[in-house]
Amino acid sequence: MPNTFEAFHVKSSGGGYDVVIGDVVDLVSQAGLSDMVVLADVRFKGRLPVGEDRAILIQSDETEKSLERMAPLIERMKAMGVNRKTHVVAVGGGIIQDIATFVASIYMRGLRWTYVPTTLLAMVDSCIGGKSSINVGKLKNLVGGFHPPEKVIVDTRFVDTLDNQQIIDGLCEAAKICYARGVFSDFHAAVANKTTTADLARDIVLRSLSSKRWFVEEDEFDQGVRLLLNFGHTFGHAIEAASDFRVSHGVAVGIGILVAHVRAERAGRYSRGRNPTFDALASYVETLLYNLPGLTDVLTSLRPMDVVSKFEGDKKHWADRFRVVIPVDGDHLELTEFPRSETERSEISEAFAGAFARVGASMSRV
Amino acid sequence: MPNTFEAFHVKSSGGGYDVVIGDVVDLVSQAGLSDMVVLADVRFKGRLPVGEDRAILIQSDETEKSLERMAPLIERMKAMGVNRKTHVVAVGGGIIQDIATFVASIYMRGLRWTYVPTTLLAMVDSCIGGKSSINVGKLKNLVGGFHPPEKVIVDTRFVDTLDNQQIIDGLCEAAKICYARGVFSDFHAAVANKTTTADLARDIVLRSLSSKRWFVEEDEFDQGVRLLLNFGHTFGHAIEAASDFRVSHGVAVGIGILVAHVRAERAGRYSRGRNPTFDALASYVETLLYNLPGLTDVLTSLRPMDVVSKFEGDKKHWADRFRVVIPVDGDHLELTEFPRSETERSEISEAFAGAFARVGASMSRV
Repeated sequence: MPNTFEAFHVKSSGGGYDVVIGDVVDLVSQAGLSDMVVLADVRFKGRLPVGEDRAILIQSDETEKSLERMAPLIERMKAMGVNRKTHVVAVGGGIIQDIATFVASIYMRGLRWTYVPTTLLAMVDSCIGGKSSINVGKLKNLVGGFHPPEKVIVDTRFVDTLDNQQIIDGLCEAAKICYARGVFSDFHAAVANKTTTADLARDIVLRSLSSKRWFVEEDEFDQGVRLLLNFGHTFGHAIEAASDFRVSHGVAVGIGILVAHVRAERAGRYSRGRNPTFDALASYVETLLYNLPGLTDVLTSLRPMDVVSKFEGDKKHWADRFRVVIPVDGDHLELTEFPRSETERSEISEAFAGAFARVGASMSRV
Repeated sequence: MPNTFEAFHVKSSGGGYDVVIGDVVDLVSQAGLSDMVVLADVRFKGRLPVGEDRAILIQSDETEKSLERMAPLIERMKAMGVNRKTHVVAVGGGIIQDIATFVASIYMRGLRWTYVPTTLLAMVDSCIGGKSSINVGKLKNLVGGFHPPEKVIVDTRFVDTLDNQQIIDGLCEAAKICYARGVFSDFHAAVANKTTTADLARDIVLRSLSSKRWFVEEDEFDQGVRLLLNFGHTFGHAIEAASDFRVSHGVAVGIGILVAHVRAERAGRYSRGRNPTFDALASYVETLLYNLPGLTDVLTSLRPMDVVSKFEGDKKHWADRFRVVIPVDGDHLELTEFPRSETERSEISEAFAGAFARVGASMSRV
């Protein structure tokens, strides 16, 4: 295959799919899809592998990723003649992926599709797994399902379209996945040695995806070990929601890792200095986020009760217990439960404040 | 199990589920569901197995069964505290089942649920299979998915709540399923001998569901032999849609069977007198529908071009060919393709007119 330098297979209940790293235009044309519709982030208008009459351009924001916006999109697809034989090609970041996964899973009870991730975050993490998360009104990610693409095409040249914060988004997620899989030290050494963005992206994508693949194949439907990948997410989602999504996902996960770190220490589950790999991860994340332009102002403006209240509403908790992944002694992760109590709420609030301080922000005390 | 007289298991990729025939109140209380929410047809208000604070009452009409109406329903479930551990119990006919299947499949990426069919149509047919069909605006059944219940509870006493047309709806579907499975003669003998409604319902439900189970287990995702159960449906859906759903589903399927019969004869695929079982099925359906109050008026008011146009828009066709199930010589069913041509459109129109005549209606020629 010309211009393709890496490929691997992800097993799933639907028969699995291939991840190919290479040139998107070459790879799409090689696939020879006779009936195709492209769902793409509007920013890639004019750079798509099909004519505009076969493309639906989507604003990639949280509002578009809502159940309420699915009906008009589906009506548009129907008007374009999309039927059970039509192949959907989605080009964009995580929001486009969520929309495409969901729409492809329900349109005529399921269409085949290909995903082309364009953000580093999507390349290193979300492009495999097959899950979708869709908002319902103000309720973030309340609905979704599982509908893996038939193929994932990673073209790392899209990294050139990203800003610094988007790169950090991807690095935080990749670091977390590699730690969860026990390969953070290798990742850390690799990112320290790379100089060019394209080289770095390819290396990170391979390390992170091969780690994530292991979790997805072990636990496709998110019932067991894959839950460890929620590390940083339950705390991170609360920060995203309380900030009205002014804090981006990967950055929020990075801060969430630090929140979990503080909470684990205060619970006596984690001792600094005795877990060298996690200590290195926490320090790497701190370095990425410390004084990131705009971040400290947003974090400082948040009200602790809002953050804690968003944390409490997370769908992963049980009715009487909070469920979070924390780092524990032995230098590994654990899915842990804390009682839903006033004491715990104030511990959680303290942990957020401690993490904010580590990236240069202070948290309001009111 | 007290008050339970029949039970059987349906295998599916999700591990399968049980169909139990018995008293719904007993069976739900035996299940001991600690966290439960009931989605029910509003007509069963006051007769539900839970208090009204745990019930959501739904008008069972085509408008409620639309993607646009899912967001408010899901927001209401969230406000009631529904989480991943909550069990959904759905009580109603096919529309309630479609809504419950869809909502349970996407809410927090999947809730466990139990279905209690209340129409004969749902009892004999749709209660097993796990499919959902949801409208998008005016586009009927354009989206959906597969999410079987954990248990189906058939309480045949609900048959007492049905009118004559709803009974005929169920009989048409049951007759079709039994023919497709090769057991129509037994079914026919059974319905001729039963006098009481409850007895009849139990007998029909068992014959029909055990036939349908075979198709669903052979072909869970509707890719092969299960497509034969679409017999009568592609023509029937066109009648439902063109009549703005004044013709009910089972009745439309009954007429659809006759349309397929006429089309097959004109195509030289079927010879009357040489296929005794199908001849008996067609005659049984004719007898059920002939001069059914209100039906002939609605059918006579339809415009042929509207019916054919709805037929053409069916999602089961390919871009260049119509796909329909027809009866063929040898007394069995076959999934057949006809070219999308003007000649074929006029053949289809003739077949509708011929079927309408057989139930006492004439079709307008304009």
